[in-house]
Amino acid sequence: MNSIRVFAPATVANVACGFDSLGFAIHQPGDIVEATLSKTPGVRITGITGDEKRLPREAEKNTAGVAVMALMEHLDEARGVDIMLHKRMPLGSGLGSSAASSVAALYATNQLLGGPLQKHEMLPFAMKAEASACGSPHADNVAPGLLGGFVLIRSYDPLDVISIDYPDNLCCTILHPHIEVRTEDSRRILRKHIKLSDAVIQWSNLAGLIAGLGKADFELISRSLNDIIFEPVRSLLIPGFDKIKGAAIASGALGCSISGSGPSVFALSTSMDKAREVGLAMKQAFSEMQLGSDIYVSAINSIGPRILTPDEDPVAPEF
Amino acid sequence: MNSIRVFAPATVANVACGFDSLGFAIHQPGDIVEATLSKTPGVRITGITGDEKRLPREAEKNTAGVAVMALMEHLDEARGVDIMLHKRMPLGSGLGSSAASSVAALYATNQLLGGPLQKHEMLPFAMKAEASACGSPHADNVAPGLLGGFVLIRSYDPLDVISIDYPDNLCCTILHPHIEVRTEDSRRILRKHIKLSDAVIQWSNLAGLIAGLGKADFELISRSLNDIIFEPVRSLLIPGFDKIKGAAIASGALGCSISGSGPSVFALSTSMDKAREVGLAMKQAFSEMQLGSDIYVSAINSIGPRILTPDEDPVAPEF
Repeated sequence: MNSIRVFAPATVANVACGFDSLGFAIHQPGDIVEATLSKTPGVRITGITGDEKRLPREAEKNTAGVAVMALMEHLDEARGVDIMLHKRMPLGSGLGSSAASSVAALYATNQLLGGPLQKHEMLPFAMKAEASACGSPHADNVAPGLLGGFVLIRSYDPLDVISIDYPDNLCCTILHPHIEVRTEDSRRILRKHIKLSDAVIQWSNLAGLIAGLGKADFELISRSLNDIIFEPVRSLLIPGFDKIKGAAIASGALGCSISGSGPSVFALSTSMDKAREVGLAMKQAFSEMQLGSDIYVSAINSIGPRILTPDEDPVAPEF
Repeated sequence: MNSIRVFAPATVANVACGFDSLGFAIHQPGDIVEATLSKTPGVRITGITGDEKRLPREAEKNTAGVAVMALMEHLDEARGVDIMLHKRMPLGSGLGSSAASSVAALYATNQLLGGPLQKHEMLPFAMKAEASACGSPHADNVAPGLLGGFVLIRSYDPLDVISIDYPDNLCCTILHPHIEVRTEDSRRILRKHIKLSDAVIQWSNLAGLIAGLGKADFELISRSLNDIIFEPVRSLLIPGFDKIKGAAIASGALGCSISGSGPSVFALSTSMDKAREVGLAMKQAFSEMQLGSDIYVSAINSIGPRILTPDEDPVAPEF
C-alpha cells in the first residue's frame, strides 16, 4: 500500500459544561486526506482543496503537516509523505477544523507505515499541531476526533484521556452560521478568574452530564447541559444565538450550546428523527438573521477516522 | 408504634474534587435518635447525650429539632414529638455531625407518622436544619446521609440530587484528629474567585471521578481524587495533613483528602482489609503530632438511616 485516503470527523468541544475538558465526534462534516508514501524524505503538502487558498501550503505551518512531521520524527522514519488535503468543513467554525485535518493526516500516515502506533499514541502529535494552529496544545477536539465517541481530558500533565460511556441513540444537530469566530478572539473575551459559586454550579452540571451519559439517563443529560460561565459571554459573538437555542429546546432537543469556541451551535437529541426536527427549527430561527447557514445532523461518531474506499466520497446530506 | 430508635450515618462531603457538590455515607460513626410520638403538640428535645452539653436543648435551635419542626409543619401534624439525641460522633469533625442528627430525627419521625414521605422528600427539612447550623442550606452531607451511597447535588435551584453509581467494594478510612475546625472558619479562608485554569483542572478531575465510580475503574478513581483548589488552603488547619495523606497513599489508598471542611481526613480503598491497613498507616503518621485521634473504617453505606432493634447499639469497632 503506497497511497491511502482517510476521512476524519468534526468534533464538538466543551459540550456546554465541560469547557476545555470534554468533546465528542460526529459523522459529518469532516476532512479527507490523501497520503502517499514517498522515497523522498520529508513531509509535503501537495495540494489543498476547499479552503479558498487560506491555509498554508508549507508543511511546517499547516496542522496536517506539523502533525505528520512530528509523527515521522518520533518514528525516526527515513521515507517521506505527500499529503493532499480536502477541506470538507468550514474554517473557524468551532467544529475542530484543524483537528480534523491533522487527525486524518496522522491516521493515514500511520496506516501507510504499517500501523506502528495505536490511536491514542498519536494524540501528542495532533496536540502539537493544535498548538501550532491556535497557540495552545488543546486536546478536546483532537482526542474525540482520533478516538471517537465522548472523550474527557482528565489531565494534561500527565496526559490522561478517558473515553466516556454514552447512550447509542444520542444524536447531534449542528447549525453552522456563515460567520467566522477566531478561537483566539473567543478565548480573549473570557476572564482569567471566575466566581467560586459559578464554578460549583458548572462542575456540578458536568458531573451530572457524565453520570447521565453513563446511565443513559436522558433527563439528567438534559438538565445538566448548561454552561453558565462561557456561553453568556461567547454567545454575544453569535447572531441570534438565544433564538437558535430557544428553537432547539422548544422542538425537543435535550440541550443546546456553543460548539467549541463557536460560532457553530450544537444540540443533542434522542434520535435522528428528533435531531432533524431540531435542525429545521434551528435553521428557521436563524433565517431571521439574513445570514447563510449549514445544518448537519449526525449520530455520535464512535470510531473517529476511517479509511475510505477508492471511490468513496463522504458528503454531508443536503438539509 | 409510639417510639422508635434510628441510626443515621456520618458522611464525607466534597470527596476531593467535588466541593459543595458530592458526598457519600459511611457506616460508622453516626448518631442515634429516640423519637416518641406525643399527644402534646410541638417538638421537644428531651435530652442529649455525648455532646458535653454543647448543643442547644431548645428544639428551634437544635438541628434535629429544626428539621422535625419543619417536617411537622409541612405535614400539618397536630401531634408532637419528643426527641432524645445520642451524639455518637464528634462535633465540628467534618463528618456531617449536624446532618446525622437531623437525618436520624427526620427519618424516625416520618416512620412514627406512618411514613408519609419518601426519603428524598425529607431533604428540604434537613437542609433547613443545615442552614440553621452553619448559615447555608448545604445538601452535601444531608443528601448522602438520607439517601446513602454517593450523591451528587447537581443543582440547588431547583434542587436536583442524583445517586451516583459506585463499585460495591469501595471502602473508606477516616482519621479524625482531636481538634475542631468550625465550618464557618474553614469556609472563610476560601477565596470567592478562583483561577479559570484551576477550575478546569478541578472539574476535569470531578468528571473523571464520576466516570471512574460509574465504570468501577479504580485506577481512574485514584487518578481523579485530587483537590487542587481547597485542600492546599484548608489542610493548613490540619496538623500533619501532608504526612497523613502521604502515609495513606503509600499504604495503597486510592486517594486521600479532607472530609468536608475538616479536620477529618478520608481515604478510599478497594477492600476493608486495605482500608484497615491504610488506617494503621494514617494513625501512625498522625501519632507524631502528639494529638489524639480516632480511626473509622467502613464500606460505603448504601442505605442511609436505619431503624434499630430495641437492644441494638451500633458502636464503631475499636481500631
